[in-house]
Amino acid sequence: MPATDTRQQQLPRYAGIPTFMRVPFASSPQGVDIALAGVPYDGGVSARPGARHGPREMRNQSSMARGIHPTLGFNPFEVCRVADIGDVPFTRVYDVEAAHAEIRDFLAPYCAAGAKVLVAGGDHSITYPIFQAMARPQPLAMVHIDAHTDTWDEFAGSKFTHGSPFRRAVEAGLLDPTRTIQIGIRGAQNSDEGWRYSLDHGMRVVFMDEFETLGVAGVIAEARRVVGDAPVYLSFDVDGLDPVFTPGTGTPEIGGLTTREALALLRGLDGLNVVGADVVEVAPPFDPSGNTALVGATLMYEALCLLARSHVPR
Amino acid sequence: MPATDTRQQQLPRYAGIPTFMRVPFASSPQGVDIALAGVPYDGGVSARPGARHGPREMRNQSSMARGIHPTLGFNPFEVCRVADIGDVPFTRVYDVEAAHAEIRDFLAPYCAAGAKVLVAGGDHSITYPIFQAMARPQPLAMVHIDAHTDTWDEFAGSKFTHGSPFRRAVEAGLLDPTRTIQIGIRGAQNSDEGWRYSLDHGMRVVFMDEFETLGVAGVIAEARRVVGDAPVYLSFDVDGLDPVFTPGTGTPEIGGLTTREALALLRGLDGLNVVGADVVEVAPPFDPSGNTALVGATLMYEALCLLARSHVPR
Amino acid sequence: MPATDTRQQQLPRYAGIPTFMRVPFASSPQGVDIALAGVPYDGGVSARPGARHGPREMRNQSSMARGIHPTLGFNPFEVCRVADIGDVPFTRVYDVEAAHAEIRDFLAPYCAAGAKVLVAGGDHSITYPIFQAMARPQPLAMVHIDAHTDTWDEFAGSKFTHGSPFRRAVEAGLLDPTRTIQIGIRGAQNSDEGWRYSLDHGMRVVFMDEFETLGVAGVIAEARRVVGDAPVYLSFDVDGLDPVFTPGTGTPEIGGLTTREALALLRGLDGLNVVGADVVEVAPPFDPSGNTALVGATLMYEALCLLARSHVPR
Amino acid sequence: MPATDTRQQQLPRYAGIPTFMRVPFASSPQGVDIALAGVPYDGGVSARPGARHGPREMRNQSSMARGIHPTLGFNPFEVCRVADIGDVPFTRVYDVEAAHAEIRDFLAPYCAAGAKVLVAGGDHSITYPIFQAMARPQPLAMVHIDAHTDTWDEFAGSKFTHGSPFRRAVEAGLLDPTRTIQIGIRGAQNSDEGWRYSLDHGMRVVFMDEFETLGVAGVIAEARRVVGDAPVYLSFDVDGLDPVFTPGTGTPEIGGLTTREALALLRGLDGLNVVGADVVEVAPPFDPSGNTALVGATLMYEALCLLARSHVPR
Amino acid sequence: MPATDTRQQQLPRYAGIPTFMRVPFASSPQGVDIALAGVPYDGGVSARPGARHGPREMRNQSSMARGIHPTLGFNPFEVCRVADIGDVPFTRVYDVEAAHAEIRDFLAPYCAAGAKVLVAGGDHSITYPIFQAMARPQPLAMVHIDAHTDTWDEFAGSKFTHGSPFRRAVEAGLLDPTRTIQIGIRGAQNSDEGWRYSLDHGMRVVFMDEFETLGVAGVIAEARRVVGDAPVYLSFDVDGLDPVFTPGTGTPEIGGLTTREALALLRGLDGLNVVGADVVEVAPPFDPSGNTALVGATLMYEALCLLARSHVPR
Amino acid sequence: MPATDTRQQQLPRYAGIPTFMRVPFASSPQGVDIALAGVPYDGGVSARPGARHGPREMRNQSSMARGIHPTLGFNPFEVCRVADIGDVPFTRVYDVEAAHAEIRDFLAPYCAAGAKVLVAGGDHSITYPIFQAMARPQPLAMVHIDAHTDTWDEFAGSKFTHGSPFRRAVEAGLLDPTRTIQIGIRGAQNSDEGWRYSLDHGMRVVFMDEFETLGVAGVIAEARRVVGDAPVYLSFDVDGLDPVFTPGTGTPEIGGLTTREALALLRGLDGLNVVGADVVEVAPPFDPSGNTALVGATLMYEALCLLARSHVPR
Repeated sequence: MPATDTRQQQLPRYAGIPTFMRVPFASSPQGVDIALAGVPYDGGVSARPGARHGPREMRNQSSMARGIHPTLGFNPFEVCRVADIGDVPFTRVYDVEAAHAEIRDFLAPYCAAGAKVLVAGGDHSITYPIFQAMARPQPLAMVHIDAHTDTWDEFAGSKFTHGSPFRRAVEAGLLDPTRTIQIGIRGAQNSDEGWRYSLDHGMRVVFMDEFETLGVAGVIAEARRVVGDAPVYLSFDVDGLDPVFTPGTGTPEIGGLTTREALALLRGLDGLNVVGADVVEVAPPFDPSGNTALVGATLMYEALCLLARSHVPR
Repeated sequence: MPATDTRQQQLPRYAGIPTFMRVPFASSPQGVDIALAGVPYDGGVSARPGARHGPREMRNQSSMARGIHPTLGFNPFEVCRVADIGDVPFTRVYDVEAAHAEIRDFLAPYCAAGAKVLVAGGDHSITYPIFQAMARPQPLAMVHIDAHTDTWDEFAGSKFTHGSPFRRAVEAGLLDPTRTIQIGIRGAQNSDEGWRYSLDHGMRVVFMDEFETLGVAGVIAEARRVVGDAPVYLSFDVDGLDPVFTPGTGTPEIGGLTTREALALLRGLDGLNVVGADVVEVAPPFDPSGNTALVGATLMYEALCLLARSHVPR
Repeated sequence: MPATDTRQQQLPRYAGIPTFMRVPFASSPQGVDIALAGVPYDGGVSARPGARHGPREMRNQSSMARGIHPTLGFNPFEVCRVADIGDVPFTRVYDVEAAHAEIRDFLAPYCAAGAKVLVAGGDHSITYPIFQAMARPQPLAMVHIDAHTDTWDEFAGSKFTHGSPFRRAVEAGLLDPTRTIQIGIRGAQNSDEGWRYSLDHGMRVVFMDEFETLGVAGVIAEARRVVGDAPVYLSFDVDGLDPVFTPGTGTPEIGGLTTREALALLRGLDGLNVVGADVVEVAPPFDPSGNTALVGATLMYEALCLLARSHVPR
Repeated sequence: MPATDTRQQQLPRYAGIPTFMRVPFASSPQGVDIALAGVPYDGGVSARPGARHGPREMRNQSSMARGIHPTLGFNPFEVCRVADIGDVPFTRVYDVEAAHAEIRDFLAPYCAAGAKVLVAGGDHSITYPIFQAMARPQPLAMVHIDAHTDTWDEFAGSKFTHGSPFRRAVEAGLLDPTRTIQIGIRGAQNSDEGWRYSLDHGMRVVFMDEFETLGVAGVIAEARRVVGDAPVYLSFDVDGLDPVFTPGTGTPEIGGLTTREALALLRGLDGLNVVGADVVEVAPPFDPSGNTALVGATLMYEALCLLARSHVPR
Repeated sequence: MPATDTRQQQLPRYAGIPTFMRVPFASSPQGVDIALAGVPYDGGVSARPGARHGPREMRNQSSMARGIHPTLGFNPFEVCRVADIGDVPFTRVYDVEAAHAEIRDFLAPYCAAGAKVLVAGGDHSITYPIFQAMARPQPLAMVHIDAHTDTWDEFAGSKFTHGSPFRRAVEAGLLDPTRTIQIGIRGAQNSDEGWRYSLDHGMRVVFMDEFETLGVAGVIAEARRVVGDAPVYLSFDVDGLDPVFTPGTGTPEIGGLTTREALALLRGLDGLNVVGADVVEVAPPFDPSGNTALVGATLMYEALCLLARSHVPR
Repeated sequence: MPATDTRQQQLPRYAGIPTFMRVPFASSPQGVDIALAGVPYDGGVSARPGARHGPREMRNQSSMARGIHPTLGFNPFEVCRVADIGDVPFTRVYDVEAAHAEIRDFLAPYCAAGAKVLVAGGDHSITYPIFQAMARPQPLAMVHIDAHTDTWDEFAGSKFTHGSPFRRAVEAGLLDPTRTIQIGIRGAQNSDEGWRYSLDHGMRVVFMDEFETLGVAGVIAEARRVVGDAPVYLSFDVDGLDPVFTPGTGTPEIGGLTTREALALLRGLDGLNVVGADVVEVAPPFDPSGNTALVGATLMYEALCLLARSHVPR
């Protein structure tokens, strides 16, 4: 069974050049089972910028990560080869669609070679080009945690902002709305257009009020029911959490999930056929204590375990 | 049906001169159904100052507010005319009673003209002159969320500090203690005088231990029972929340409400005859992440919906 | 019944030289029932330093403490003599074992004279020399709240780091593992050696997943069952709480207790034979809002009430 | 002599809805001699974003401004009508050139009506559309304080970033390079292309090394010599100051001007024919103490006095 | 020669209960040559509050202080008995004049017994009651460093704010304006009334523009000329420094002194007959890095040396 | 002429895994002319810890560095091969001398292979093992910028703290005190032992008072005179700067150098035979704005140019 070189993880946590979770760096898909990538891009935000600094700080905080999962009982680094493939090397940052193409083109070779990608954003607009890079033969299922449905059509002249990725993905046949669950949705809106789009296209939208009623166990059950055994993408916008946990984000909305609920929720997805994931909207300039990036990095570790599960020998 | 001009709300959230929730400014009661006012005064605090900066920062953060309530299902700005009437223009700030008179005199014309007031504090001492300005024919009922009963008699030589407003209001016949519920009370005290005053005068005091036992639904039921159909004032001291949500406040006390409980509680009051409200004790100098002001502004939006409910056509 | 001089506690909370909870300073055991001590030492940390500054900031924030407990219904300062005995006057800080000896030697005379000690850390390595100072005739029982079991053997060349105190204490016959409960344990580990040590030696380890299942009441029941009527030590590492409550700590791990759970848990221990306590790992440099030290100081007040209970006249 | 309504300036500094320097709001050019405008746009930055929040925070801090200049000896608000005309109401924020057109179109009517504009940025890319709005019959002279010459050609696919405005302005015939002085230039560069462009086109570039040699008085003399009696624009990028004064900026470079040098420099320009000005690159998310916005607001007041000088009766 | 017990100063700087400079606490004038006192009062501010927290943080940071002055060449703690006499135990904080009386009454016995007082504020209004407590037979001379002359008459209904102490002191015959020098004055004003009062009554006002011209040596010469051999009071408002050094203050004004200039200035006063001193307007809530309190504490050490000079054996 | 691969430096500054100045990583001395190394160790501090986090944050901020020096006129990356060799992989962090040995052993192979080392600390104790690693045939000359001479003998039981490196180095024959200049010394001390050691052994100590008198040019002349043409080490403790520039440090002392003076000073050393260098005492936990690490990274770039000078073709 191939494994990750974890010697860097044995050093003091504050030491060394910070790759994600202190795994080796890789510059090609060869020998990579799971590719950790940064997408330092926030050209799609509508309110507060700063998510371009997210990968740096999540790499930094991810040095706190360790191997054996306390609940799932395995060490993802022992069962497969995890590598940090660096950040998308942007050369076009002032044109949203050009930047998106660079994201797609950077990740595509890894996906084509069979690696699963786990991406640190960046704003949520980046998920659309990630879907393009994955180029799955069938539309993906999705578990999506967020305060917002991100199925709006257009904002301030663009159809590719962080409010639109899943609408674009459905339109492009990359995402199956009937196998999509959106969890944590809340907050007032000037129009209900996005909510309507999700509901009208068959997405399962769990608003926070229903979340409270169902409880985490109920939401997990719903997620498993909706997704079934389809290849599923996990997209975690940290504003799905209450901003007290993740103040460093672009469009905070009070009344969100706790970290304990988020951990339980992700662990409840264990065994699903997770084929890709992202943690997005960590905006360090609004995060004086660093907790947002720590949460983001820990969610990445949890997502890594979901991605690595299929590598665990039975 | 008269409505609010919401053109400013369509702009990017970081843009423009920040009135509360980006509603129009008004300098007279004419055409104002609900008046949003700032009371930048913290001359009544006993511990950490800074609430004088609260209205500024709540105005700033309130640009994140939007129209359609996700649960109540209506847009308060569409059903009535909401205006920012500015801050009390203080000319006497070193004499608590003189400052209180200025608060009363600034708000009174709006109340007299039939507008409902929604006030951003400022410390909690300001609620007493707000009651005076409202000049209701009968003592008000009240839902009061706070860590402290604020029914102490005197502190450091004054009877008008932020620990006393509701004792003064009962004495003045402005508040009906038997229709008052105080929620979130906790923390040690050097004397139980305030607790005793509340209990002895018939207020329903929900200490945090009982809050845990009753749950939010139980507390809502109690609140509705106590208040009945009387005209009710909502007074929300942000130290009723746990200081992790609202570190920027003058007398933090750990172990308080979560924002989700607070939102659920306020939404559970929908349909009561709410005639005025305040959100107080936001002290930005102690709020490095800005979350306190964001919470305060969001609570104002929730209170606005309660005040606007009677304007919704049936 | 002897009592504490509480005149300083009547002054405004921001005033005066900050002893713990503004009790009198004492430089000898005479007339001291409960000794509040600072141990400004963080030479045993493995990740982020700063707990050496913990006693200062907990003293500072402890001025917010007051007398009458809202639930337990008594005032600890009225039933016994509480004193701040200052900080360990370190002269050897670059040698962990030498520093530990200084901790032991500073506290021993107080313990020998019959005073109970309540210590503000400092990192968790200090609990081992505290146990040595207490020099109990029998191994202690313990209620231990923490994200980590702190029963690892060695790290980076030392057996006396903040990951080892309870393994050393068991080995030295100072701690009875079969009367020890560890609550809040979570987070990945590079090795399960510490978890195994605790379990293999009979400690009751409540991982967070089980904590969620049992609920606070269930955990209290377990703690009372394990401890029984033995003399018990309370050790509270603030990283047992979720880092959103206590960001200022050396090895934060998301998904921990809330302050409300912590308060309920401690109050649920009322009546146990608590003979000593500490609150450790408050690292102010990572605490921009000061909330960590406020939480730490409030936990000290709760621990004080547990220690003072035996002084309450029946 | 027309004057500004300064009643708001008499209130406590923390009170009221913050227009710039608490002058009245105006929504049309009528009766406006000097128009204070915000341009909350940072789509042109190359490193750290956040300047979109600059106008808000400069408005906030500008409440500290007062009337009578301590050195120049007049009160700008008494000699002309100063108004806050609000922020550019952006509807296209994802396309640099479209956003620039909106800036131009918002300001043009004020310029056409004869008002002078004083703009709070926003990143430095905005100065190019400001020049377009001014639509002067002859190319402008300029005093430009900055760490960078901002005469680079292209970056990451755009010719309209914050590194290019003055190259574009020269190309468009809006700026006269031979009447331009650039002060405070410093820091390493990956290419000397921008420096070369400035020098080759006749701009007077005062690198920091020469600044130290000349002293402020010498630099003032140079500026007056270069500009002569031409209509001159003042463009102040706060990264011209040392980042210790203005940490909240996008591309900080140590070794810059002090605030005392900046104040002396601006006062030394008194009497020049200043026809427009901006203060740009204030990025509040990187400004934990708020000093950057305070500096920015004070520089705006100094620039206002330069603009108002021609209104002072002789 | 009597000396101070400096054993606490030998411990690590982060250790121990923080008295000023870690000198012994004293509760009576006996055996005190120089009394260090805190006045945690900010009821006289006009803009941002928080100076009530100044004594705490200056005590905290003053642990960085040590004995031998690097330039003056003596150790103040060896030549006289320095004690921390604690904070004014306020019982009336809502009435400026009552609070001032408490300041006066607390300090008077120390002054009467011959101790010199060195006070940590608190806002600048406290200097007037300090003068009252000193009760000198002749009006004092003064060296006053500040951005503002603090000789205004009335603000917002009070004659005892932090803008008025020296006008009140002159009126009461406690301060000799002709032996007063005010250094660092700057910033715009809505009225020149205060400036005029100082100049009209013969104070030597060194505005910052003149400060730049004279240089520190020239200002020292002026100060020595003005004061002569009269008993002189040193009043240092930290807003005399540029806010980059002291952001934590109530009315920051850019363009002030550097710390190096301040140190040189104070050292240049060595040998004057300094009989009392204060360092005021340190407002920790606006001081995220703690530098303001560090500067304040260091200035206190420098002032201490000036006060102790007369105790140095010749 | 060999050169550094600078492709990473062309990307946006916030992108990519942060090596120092975005140069390539190297794990052996082969092909390395100048080795950039991190020493994340603060076990030798006496006051505030945190310098263990210095290399991470200096790596992070060093992405702001670019190639062509604005004054020296060359690009260090074009004239030699610069590599980031990572951090010392500590396995013994609780024993100062053992940790020092690890520093020495990590760097020695690079030095032996002829690479020059440029080290990011860590506290100042690390310079002694760096000297050991360099193993020069003759004692080194040194230019040392610092608030403290660091020639004390022992503190709190250790002779290897950050107050002692240069005393140990002289004793070991690694440093020539008569070719050593110490610049920026200031602040009170409890004993003058360290000052005396430096002076008695022939070091040229430039206290800040003399620094002001000499001016930067005078100090440069002194430094060149003292050092002559000997191989010289540059050791820059960021507390040599005023703490307003570098608040994030362990023992701040007000009244230090400005960044402009520091840059001028280093540039004035151009042409000396600089053979090694460090920038130490950057403690990010005390650096809320990040400016300290930015200054530290920029000083590293300046030191790099001094080290690279000998590679510039003539």
